[in-house]
Amino acid sequence: ESREEKIEESVASVLEEAKELQDSVSSHISNTLSDEQPLRQRAVILDSKIHSLRSSLDSLLSNKLINPSLADKLDEDLQRARCIIVDGDASSLLPGHAQGRFLRMFLGPINVRASRKDVQLKVKEEYNSYRDRTALLFLLFPAALLILRSWVWDGCLPAFPVQMYQAWLLFLYTGLALRENILRVNGSDIRPWWIYHHYCAMIMALVSLTWEIKGQPDCAKKQRGVQLFLQWAMMQGVAMLLQNRYQRQRLYTRIALGKAKRMDVVWGETAGVDGQLWLLCPILFILQGFEAYVGQSLLRTAFVGVVSEWQVIVCGLLLVVMAIGNFENTVQTLMVKSRF
Amino acid sequence: ESREEKIEESVASVLEEAKELQDSVSSHISNTLSDEQPLRQRAVILDSKIHSLRSSLDSLLSNKLINPSLADKLDEDLQRARCIIVDGDASSLLPGHAQGRFLRMFLGPINVRASRKDVQLKVKEEYNSYRDRTALLFLLFPAALLILRSWVWDGCLPAFPVQMYQAWLLFLYTGLALRENILRVNGSDIRPWWIYHHYCAMIMALVSLTWEIKGQPDCAKKQRGVQLFLQWAMMQGVAMLLQNRYQRQRLYTRIALGKAKRMDVVWGETAGVDGQLWLLCPILFILQGFEAYVGQSLLRTAFVGVVSEWQVIVCGLLLVVMAIGNFENTVQTLMVKSRF
Ligand SMILES: CC(C)(COP(=O)(O)OP(=O)(O)OC[C@H]1O[C@@H](n2cnc3c(N)ncnc32)[C@H](O)[C@@H]1OP(=O)(O)O)[C@@H](O)C(=O)NCCC(=O)NCCS
Ligand SMILES: CC(C)(COP(=O)(O)OP(=O)(O)OC[C@H]1O[C@@H](n2cnc3c(N)ncnc32)[C@H](O)[C@@H]1OP(=O)(O)O)[C@@H](O)C(=O)NCCC(=O)NCCS
Repeated sequence: ESREEKIEESVASVLEEAKELQDSVSSHISNTLSDEQPLRQRAVILDSKIHSLRSSLDSLLSNKLINPSLADKLDEDLQRARCIIVDGDASSLLPGHAQGRFLRMFLGPINVRASRKDVQLKVKEEYNSYRDRTALLFLLFPAALLILRSWVWDGCLPAFPVQMYQAWLLFLYTGLALRENILRVNGSDIRPWWIYHHYCAMIMALVSLTWEIKGQPDCAKKQRGVQLFLQWAMMQGVAMLLQNRYQRQRLYTRIALGKAKRMDVVWGETAGVDGQLWLLCPILFILQGFEAYVGQSLLRTAFVGVVSEWQVIVCGLLLVVMAIGNFENTVQTLMVKSRF
Repeated sequence: ESREEKIEESVASVLEEAKELQDSVSSHISNTLSDEQPLRQRAVILDSKIHSLRSSLDSLLSNKLINPSLADKLDEDLQRARCIIVDGDASSLLPGHAQGRFLRMFLGPINVRASRKDVQLKVKEEYNSYRDRTALLFLLFPAALLILRSWVWDGCLPAFPVQMYQAWLLFLYTGLALRENILRVNGSDIRPWWIYHHYCAMIMALVSLTWEIKGQPDCAKKQRGVQLFLQWAMMQGVAMLLQNRYQRQRLYTRIALGKAKRMDVVWGETAGVDGQLWLLCPILFILQGFEAYVGQSLLRTAFVGVVSEWQVIVCGLLLVVMAIGNFENTVQTLMVKSRF
């Protein structure tokens, strides 16, 4: 009897505790939300104030109504204020880019916005190291295939390793596209084109998987397309390695700025990496030229009739489109940067 | 002069406001976290209390030290308490399943846990409607291919539409696997096998993309593998539609329970859908048998030598593995459910 009573009591008290906990948690949640509301408003108002001050500063300057050195100082202060909001904890309160279709398609309506800035920076850091890891493979994998082709395989790529490689590419680009979409939701200013570029690369990897890899006889000719594709991939690896080096340094600068809470550091968008950009870009342009060249070679092999599969035509077109888009967007980035 | 002063003042005040905002936001964040800490502890303790009470109840019952009808009532109370914690707002405080490798591979270290229960339920609901939408296509797409094959294409499937379909499958299964992983992080009790099942299906779609679709002459024989694959896919569509019907109803029951805040509803794990399960399972078993049959037919066509590509062997093996795993896990689910 006493044991029965004891357990009855415990169960009743546990049920009561559960109800109380539920109440405390829901009031905690609603309190947090209502505390956040005014902060969110202040962040939005401040952000628009900074914008309007910047434009009045610009108009004063162009009408010569302000001393240029004072204008410089004020401009720096405004940048500093913006940096505090955008790179500090407050950034999680500013409306980010809406979650696009791509993310919704793959993930559903889950929110991928990190609520704290240090988490957002960690995500970005991890993205960079993911790119580092893959850029190396990007170089080594196709290089190994091409080397084995001439030394071991007698000029004839076997289908299986190439398809493994193409599957890996597909997986890789899907991951990059997802991660970049997530970064965008978390407030990154990444240009939409760089994401579209990865969609194109995904389609290309998918199409190349269905592309039949013909064997002997005469495979040197028949495999011309595959060979070009592998060369393009190696080139992508080089571009990625260079870009990573540059972008990692940019991020470190920003993290250092973010950690120095009061922002008592002299601040500059591209502080310390400006020089690198002017070194990087010519190399990028050369690579983009090569990309276009590979694309039109593919198109040529398709139309001359050596390999007349639709896959070759689609890949060729995609490469040309990607080359043009990359070039255009690199130039635009440079133009925006040189304006400051 | 006065304009200069004015803008100088405004900039200084904006900079000051930005610093203040940063401070308020970071103290808001740390306050929220420290308020959450005790709630989190209470949730964890309560959860373990419920577990230990349940096991002492079981031992009292098996030693006949408690009146069975009282035991029933107490069991129901414990289930109700657990339901309040698991399906209420407090669930976001309980440790969920850790984010697995699959999610980290595709998304990086971003947190996909929804912090509020209603969002979690929305995610689940959207997952179900995603499955509904795709289940229909799952039926129609391969059915259309098979019908066109005999009516229009003279018994010979052209490569392109089949490859389109396989690419769509790959995309679909990747989405499902990502979403299910996300659900798991959000506290769903989904068995790991159902997720592995989708990894297997992803691999199968990928492998089938590289599978050359041979044309005339004699394509009826050569395309036997592809045909079996399409039949399996249609069968998957049927299984999904049935399963969705059942699972949507289960979810509605749970949402209704979650909304009735104080849980004054009589609660039961499978309330109202128990009967359906016993109808669903025989059909599932038949479908699983068919899955195994398709798998071994593929293996046979490969070994008899009509289509001796490695892709056919891999797909055959995967199908057999999936059939066995599905069967085992369906049986285990039934066993767990019948114990209550
Ligand atoms: C030109 C380039 C070096 C400029 O980089 P940048 O100085 O970081 O450019 P921005 O200042 O406009 O960057 C804004 C944001 O977009 C991101 N970003 C820029 N280019 C990116 C790219 N190609 N991929 C992913 N993210 C990119 C930056 O990291 C930054 O993110 P943040 O807001 O979170 O800090 C870079 O865009 C680039 O390497 N482009 C060429 C890529 C290419 O052509 N590759 C293929 C060669 S064939
Ligand atoms: C047997 C079956 C109907 C049981 O479903 P159930 O009653 O929901 O099973 P459980 O109670 O164990 O479910 C626990 C959780 O896993 C989820 N779940 C169960 N089976 C699932 C599946 N196959 N796919 C995705 N999620 C599943 C449930 O939705 C539930 O989620 P929740 O905790 O968020 O509410 C279901 O597992 C099933 O349909 N399996 C067979 C699938 C199959 O064989 N398909 C191919 C046929 S060849």
